[in-house]
Amino acid sequence: MVFYRGADGEVAALEDFCPHRGAPLSLGFVREGMLVCGYHGLTMGCTGHAHSMPGQRVHNFPPIRAFPVIERYGFIWVWPGDADQADPAKLHPLPWAESEAWAYGGGLFHIACDYRLMIDNLMDLTHETYVHASSIGQREIDEAPVKTWVEGEEVVTSRMMASVHAPPFWRMALRCAGLPEEELVDRWQICRFSLPSHVMIEVGVALQGMGGYEANASVKASSIVVDFITPETEHSHWYFWGMARQFAVDDPAVTDSIREGQHRIFSEDLLMLEQQQANLLRHPERKLLKLNIDAGGVRSRMIIDRAIAAEAGKA
Amino acid sequence: MVFYRGADGEVAALEDFCPHRGAPLSLGFVREGMLVCGYHGLTMGCTGHAHSMPGQRVHNFPPIRAFPVIERYGFIWVWPGDADQADPAKLHPLPWAESEAWAYGGGLFHIACDYRLMIDNLMDLTHETYVHASSIGQREIDEAPVKTWVEGEEVVTSRMMASVHAPPFWRMALRCAGLPEEELVDRWQICRFSLPSHVMIEVGVALQGMGGYEANASVKASSIVVDFITPETEHSHWYFWGMARQFAVDDPAVTDSIREGQHRIFSEDLLMLEQQQANLLRHPERKLLKLNIDAGGVRSRMIIDRAIAAEAGKA
Amino acid sequence: MVFYRGADGEVAALEDFCPHRGAPLSLGFVREGMLVCGYHGLTMGCTGHAHSMPGQRVHNFPPIRAFPVIERYGFIWVWPGDADQADPAKLHPLPWAESEAWAYGGGLFHIACDYRLMIDNLMDLTHETYVHASSIGQREIDEAPVKTWVEGEEVVTSRMMASVHAPPFWRMALRCAGLPEEELVDRWQICRFSLPSHVMIEVGVALQGMGGYEANASVKASSIVVDFITPETEHSHWYFWGMARQFAVDDPAVTDSIREGQHRIFSEDLLMLEQQQANLLRHPERKLLKLNIDAGGVRSRMIIDRAIAAEAGKA
Repeated sequence: MVFYRGADGEVAALEDFCPHRGAPLSLGFVREGMLVCGYHGLTMGCTGHAHSMPGQRVHNFPPIRAFPVIERYGFIWVWPGDADQADPAKLHPLPWAESEAWAYGGGLFHIACDYRLMIDNLMDLTHETYVHASSIGQREIDEAPVKTWVEGEEVVTSRMMASVHAPPFWRMALRCAGLPEEELVDRWQICRFSLPSHVMIEVGVALQGMGGYEANASVKASSIVVDFITPETEHSHWYFWGMARQFAVDDPAVTDSIREGQHRIFSEDLLMLEQQQANLLRHPERKLLKLNIDAGGVRSRMIIDRAIAAEAGKA
Repeated sequence: MVFYRGADGEVAALEDFCPHRGAPLSLGFVREGMLVCGYHGLTMGCTGHAHSMPGQRVHNFPPIRAFPVIERYGFIWVWPGDADQADPAKLHPLPWAESEAWAYGGGLFHIACDYRLMIDNLMDLTHETYVHASSIGQREIDEAPVKTWVEGEEVVTSRMMASVHAPPFWRMALRCAGLPEEELVDRWQICRFSLPSHVMIEVGVALQGMGGYEANASVKASSIVVDFITPETEHSHWYFWGMARQFAVDDPAVTDSIREGQHRIFSEDLLMLEQQQANLLRHPERKLLKLNIDAGGVRSRMIIDRAIAAEAGKA
Repeated sequence: MVFYRGADGEVAALEDFCPHRGAPLSLGFVREGMLVCGYHGLTMGCTGHAHSMPGQRVHNFPPIRAFPVIERYGFIWVWPGDADQADPAKLHPLPWAESEAWAYGGGLFHIACDYRLMIDNLMDLTHETYVHASSIGQREIDEAPVKTWVEGEEVVTSRMMASVHAPPFWRMALRCAGLPEEELVDRWQICRFSLPSHVMIEVGVALQGMGGYEANASVKASSIVVDFITPETEHSHWYFWGMARQFAVDDPAVTDSIREGQHRIFSEDLLMLEQQQANLLRHPERKLLKLNIDAGGVRSRMIIDRAIAAEAGKA
């Protein structure tokens, strides 16, 4: 897939394949709103039809595929399926991305594992205690019971920890929010999976006994861990990660610091997930356990399977 | 394949496989005109028969294959087919390689693409406008009509550009030839494909209106782009490239400078060709277009296919 | 496979696969004699049964495989076959490893070739003349006749060289042993292959005419080249190499110096073996020669084949 901006500045997403000799159009350049192939100069329009080529008549050239695409919330969203079915209304709403009251920072990883292992990972934060022991993990996570339920097409898994010490990341957040970092807090994690493969995690801490997740904004620090998980092959995916926060929203140094921290923390997941994938490929015959803590991932996979089956039925 | 020089200094080309335990003979060394295996000391003669081995009788050792080989024009030419059919007369004549009036410099690339994509590339120089925009490309190339014809076993494709400004490479050449580099010139490109997979390209510029390609030597700068394309696997080849020139033939600094420039320019082709190959492998079902500018490559492939069929018929 | 020490300090060898979600247990940590999975905290005991997991009942979790294991002679020995057949008495005795009169140093290589090519290599030291020309090789090796015989389950191949100059390695050893390094010596090499794939090579030099291998300890320098060859895949293995010596046993600088030398020398073998393997894979149809010098490897392979067939028959 190749992306470029046409004459009106709108993003176009095309197959990265010149219909002339198969060169990747992404090696070309943009001229007057057209994508010019860097090999022999075929110019391609936003719709996937060749526009012109020096010395050639192009109206009979086979078109390449153009993908419906929306640019919103700071991301480009592609509909890789049947163009007739593309519906902008299906785009997951991200109100925080368009609000002055929030700040956002994030990054991108290429990860060599099935994207569903990443969903499992994000829908069961028990692993923080082990994988992220020095930053966001704490013993109380895996002691707190986890609740999982389905709301329509969304899977939610939540965990509440009352009267705990804030781990290093949340001390920093409390500090930024002008709150005491040494006091006991009530901590929450609410993971929401939605199609096609987004996981939004509401996380935060409130001063002890003030209502936890429901507490007044003045006594808590909270944010949303943002995860857009784009499958690439059966055993690899692109992982767009970030954090939207409601504290210190005007301080870009905090954005940078959180991005760095998240990069380091999510790199720990990357290592674990790629090794887990390699192990699963070595032992294809093994069945994994589905424990209560795994319910979030299990239910998310059910919704994915159902959506894939529905799409296959339509086709 | 392993190459070495025997007692008389003649080059031998042998299978790189010791008949004793399969070690590569290329890890060995040469002693008294014999190639000695670096593992257990079997000594191999130019004909592929073992000559001796410490403590062994070797006359019953299975021979390895010896390839007919000619050293000429500064290259070593191997006949990988049926030895009976090897005919030194089939070697493509390269008179410039043995003439005092010419100078030559070149290099070698390993390229991860089908060698025929390289032939396509060289038999259609339209791409210079796009791939080599900063050195030899110019807009007039893809505006000039291309002519393609077959002369016996040779495919020729030519393009003449009258009254153009010389691009940077040819300014340098004009300067070297003692000619004014700012004036308008007539430029030519005549690509010749011949079996098994050589492409020689006559290129040059003459001062405007003096006869172009046919102009007197005193008013032009010209050279031959030399391309020996040796297939390795279905999707890789060795690319011997160089330039033979008739200007500044006694100046090795010019040879070095051209070699460097050609290295840089042909690296641009390498990038494009490897990406094109990768794209074609991702989309094996796609048919490519065969435009007029592609006629050189298309015709060359026909001659290759015919030669392969003829060889298969013989066998 | 993952190794760790339990509460009593005993080594355990387990499948490196957490029964929960397939994460490698080797990414975890040890706590109170248990191996804790680094993903979600499952704790695994030495027998391959899950011991506990936060918030879970684990008694129905499927066990993973635990391999019988012995720690002795400075190595950990794993029985990867049927646990019922594991018999500590089958461990190859290494008296030098537990004797004050000997010193030992060694290392480990991962080598991309069939482990049997390594056995061939070690059971025919003719190659020293060629592969290790500058250290332990000498012309007399491939001039001396080789004898090969079988003693029960052991294959022995020996070579005696009378009245030769000591090559550089043995000059060093003579010097360490307080013996003159310039005088002629009698040199020996006695290679012993035993199942599953050990090769022990008795090597040494004695002052000329004093009895060679049988000479009194005061007039010779000798050692054992130790090779434990652990197959990994069909075309790769782990190579544990080292040297046990009877000279300068209290001098760790000599141990270091020998280890460095051996590392350098065995790296030459590694290069040759990996290239040989690559060549054999390119030419699967070729038959290799089996000369008298190859008898050690050929016979060792027969014993391996017989043992594999016997095991298959039992199963």
